[in-house]
Amino acid sequence: MTTPRTETSPEELDTTVEGAAAAAPLLAAFAPHDRALLLRTVAEVLDAGADELVPLAMAEAHYPEARCRSELARTTFQLRLFADVLEEGSFLGASVDPADPEWGTPRPDLRRLLLPLGPVAVFGASNFPFAFSTAGGDTASALAAGCPVVVKAHPGHPELARRTADLVAVALAEAGAPDGTFALVEGVDAGRLLVTHPLVRAVGFTGSVSGGRALHDLAVSRPDPIPFYGELGSINPVFVTRAAASARGAEILSGYAESATLGSGQFCTKPGVLLLPEETDLAALTGDVAERGPAPLLNDRVEQGFTATLGTLAEHPATEVLVRGGPGDDGWTPTLLRTDLDSLIQNADVLLEECFGPATLVVTYQDERRLLEAGAVLGGQLTVTVHGEETDLIAPSLLSLGASLAGRVIWNGWPTGVAVTHAMTHGGPYPATTAPTHTSVGTAAITRFLRPVSFQSVPQSLLPRALRDDNPLGVPRRVNGVPEQS
Amino acid sequence: MTTPRTETSPEELDTTVEGAAAAAPLLAAFAPHDRALLLRTVAEVLDAGADELVPLAMAEAHYPEARCRSELARTTFQLRLFADVLEEGSFLGASVDPADPEWGTPRPDLRRLLLPLGPVAVFGASNFPFAFSTAGGDTASALAAGCPVVVKAHPGHPELARRTADLVAVALAEAGAPDGTFALVEGVDAGRLLVTHPLVRAVGFTGSVSGGRALHDLAVSRPDPIPFYGELGSINPVFVTRAAASARGAEILSGYAESATLGSGQFCTKPGVLLLPEETDLAALTGDVAERGPAPLLNDRVEQGFTATLGTLAEHPATEVLVRGGPGDDGWTPTLLRTDLDSLIQNADVLLEECFGPATLVVTYQDERRLLEAGAVLGGQLTVTVHGEETDLIAPSLLSLGASLAGRVIWNGWPTGVAVTHAMTHGGPYPATTAPTHTSVGTAAITRFLRPVSFQSVPQSLLPRALRDDNPLGVPRRVNGVPEQS
Repeated sequence: MTTPRTETSPEELDTTVEGAAAAAPLLAAFAPHDRALLLRTVAEVLDAGADELVPLAMAEAHYPEARCRSELARTTFQLRLFADVLEEGSFLGASVDPADPEWGTPRPDLRRLLLPLGPVAVFGASNFPFAFSTAGGDTASALAAGCPVVVKAHPGHPELARRTADLVAVALAEAGAPDGTFALVEGVDAGRLLVTHPLVRAVGFTGSVSGGRALHDLAVSRPDPIPFYGELGSINPVFVTRAAASARGAEILSGYAESATLGSGQFCTKPGVLLLPEETDLAALTGDVAERGPAPLLNDRVEQGFTATLGTLAEHPATEVLVRGGPGDDGWTPTLLRTDLDSLIQNADVLLEECFGPATLVVTYQDERRLLEAGAVLGGQLTVTVHGEETDLIAPSLLSLGASLAGRVIWNGWPTGVAVTHAMTHGGPYPATTAPTHTSVGTAAITRFLRPVSFQSVPQSLLPRALRDDNPLGVPRRVNGVPEQS
Repeated sequence: MTTPRTETSPEELDTTVEGAAAAAPLLAAFAPHDRALLLRTVAEVLDAGADELVPLAMAEAHYPEARCRSELARTTFQLRLFADVLEEGSFLGASVDPADPEWGTPRPDLRRLLLPLGPVAVFGASNFPFAFSTAGGDTASALAAGCPVVVKAHPGHPELARRTADLVAVALAEAGAPDGTFALVEGVDAGRLLVTHPLVRAVGFTGSVSGGRALHDLAVSRPDPIPFYGELGSINPVFVTRAAASARGAEILSGYAESATLGSGQFCTKPGVLLLPEETDLAALTGDVAERGPAPLLNDRVEQGFTATLGTLAEHPATEVLVRGGPGDDGWTPTLLRTDLDSLIQNADVLLEECFGPATLVVTYQDERRLLEAGAVLGGQLTVTVHGEETDLIAPSLLSLGASLAGRVIWNGWPTGVAVTHAMTHGGPYPATTAPTHTSVGTAAITRFLRPVSFQSVPQSLLPRALRDDNPLGVPRRVNGVPEQS
């Protein structure tokens, strides 16, 4: 059964965004603890709806049940973690500088905190129908920040998007959130109108480079440009030193096959390129990949993009097909390609295009030192992984290269699996993201939707509570630039 | 004597930016304490050069000596304050999440810190030839972050820019900074090439809406868009409640006249609009403004822009000229205009254009509650000021309106004078800035030039020092999201 596509009309979109804008000051006025309660209620209602939501995700995203259940659990964990952040209070960035006649500039009483930006548009991804979609990380962090959210439903899982949105709306209403705190719109045109709507104050996006760049360009060319937090694309290179390959080559190759084919390679953190010493025996890897069974892709659009990019890669004179995967009744089997470092560097524009789906490229090198030259052709990345030995002379340089290219540098591990923690960065220079100074996963993601406001010489009775001398909310603050002693 | 204009050639620009890019990893590798020493040396050398620099500023910006000396002092104070920030260490945002098998997602050891973005282009302003120019806040915060800086010299003070740049370069070399840490380029074309240069990673800009928007558009339409931190324009409205006008009208009007004409009105925080109850006697204000003597404007370009905008304002049928200022041998005398709230709202597109120079607009209102309607026509602001009484029923609404429009909300004071402190925000929604989540003044300005990088499962010996278990740099860190107990 094909779900009929619904298109939100321009008039409906306008009403929806106006509702979000009307909710904005009310939601902003919620104390952090009260916003935490909203998030916890949403998490509870989604958890309670698992038996309804999971089958929708399975049907629309073609993932197995266990994957859908664990992704939903990750999603509600994430909502609760942001509730913890609200209750802890540091996210407010509260800072108090009392008046000081001895200071190097005239200095009246100044007190700063971070306030919500206003209505946020969220564009989710098809490959994480829970965790990076309707009630995913962008929505959770924007609501936590106190921003009403209008989600543009992903057409890859329309029914799941609608049902998730219904449950989120019910939960928010039940918990006392203002009308308009959350809404869903549908359709490509509605998405464009959302990004250019005068009342929308920021955009969170997870998806392709082409789609993300188009919306980014709309956001920054508005009469009033707004922040566009796009997570677009990444190759996620893995560097294997000669010493590591020698010490545990088989283990590395099997870990790679597992990580690269996980979720049919439909992860933004899929290791797309593995750089190995040329003497490595690839027979076991080839056998491993060849034995992996088929799995369906997310949707026709993903399949079309994958087919086109894979075709270009596989037919390129510089690549060799080690395992030729392909489509069948039960989905796609994975493809394994090979090239060498010189060819990669010379044909970087083609060979380093993200190939979203079950295909990955092994790159063999002769001279280990030349791995560092790959840095010049690799663009911004979400992750760079290094498999090495602690005694490797090249290890510090490879880790530095990783830090210069990516938002996350992994040692002797794999990039798939993005922990939702305080110290996580899911970000990086373009084209990994359009906002290299931010993360879209982890608690620091909340800062994307907050802006600083300073209050100068405002009397106690008129100050926001977080900034009053008696600190009635008990939020952590800095005074004169250093943590306040309580 | 007119200084011949120098234009940096495209080849020179390329060499300069390549030098900055070569310096970037070296400067990034400096421990924060060592970068602090660089900043302190620059401050010392500039202070020592005051008797040479101040006359250049006086000649080129047409400011009196005292103003130039105090601005230079502010500039070197700012450099030293960023040195303090580096020594304190919180700016690194160091965060440690140890591996945790009980966590809600798979959680390996994750450690995050903020790293410099890379070479930064800085475009200073003509109106603060020290504090917002060659060695001003953008330069100080970018160097503090560990980013090499290439300044596009402001053509309004070319000799001062060159001499300041010479001293900065001498100081940096003396203190052991890598070659290429700082450079100056000149010319409009060089500025454009700088913003679009592939090796430049961010831009700091202070100036006009038109100039800033043009460079913003170049930055965000690059093949790889980069952050553009532009501080553009602001009206800085001042709301005076009826009770405040009644209690201390004379004091408010004289403070307004002083603030609005300071520096010939050539401040981005000049109060451009004063909203007053209609019964206020404006005779004293009119007399005060009329008696203020002439002062020269910064340069011909400022004068041309001011003349055009003032002409449009003064000739508008909705405005009345209370004091007609104008040009003379010793510069311009200030102009005072008047309109009413209805006219302001109806003609906002014309009457709320920033008029950079010695002119300001008084807006009279009948119904105090209707002040809140002005919020709908005022765009993003650097500041909103409220003069009120603590018992004013409308005070909380006006302060909330201010917080929704501006980066700084001032109570019973004046927006001119931007303290360089930890809790300052000099920023706001567009067109006040192109980056509403940031400030360009105060210690928080450093975050504009840093990006987060997480290290996953990296062994102690290969971690950045700030993230090692033994914390050899002694930087403040968060562990599991809360401050580490030392």
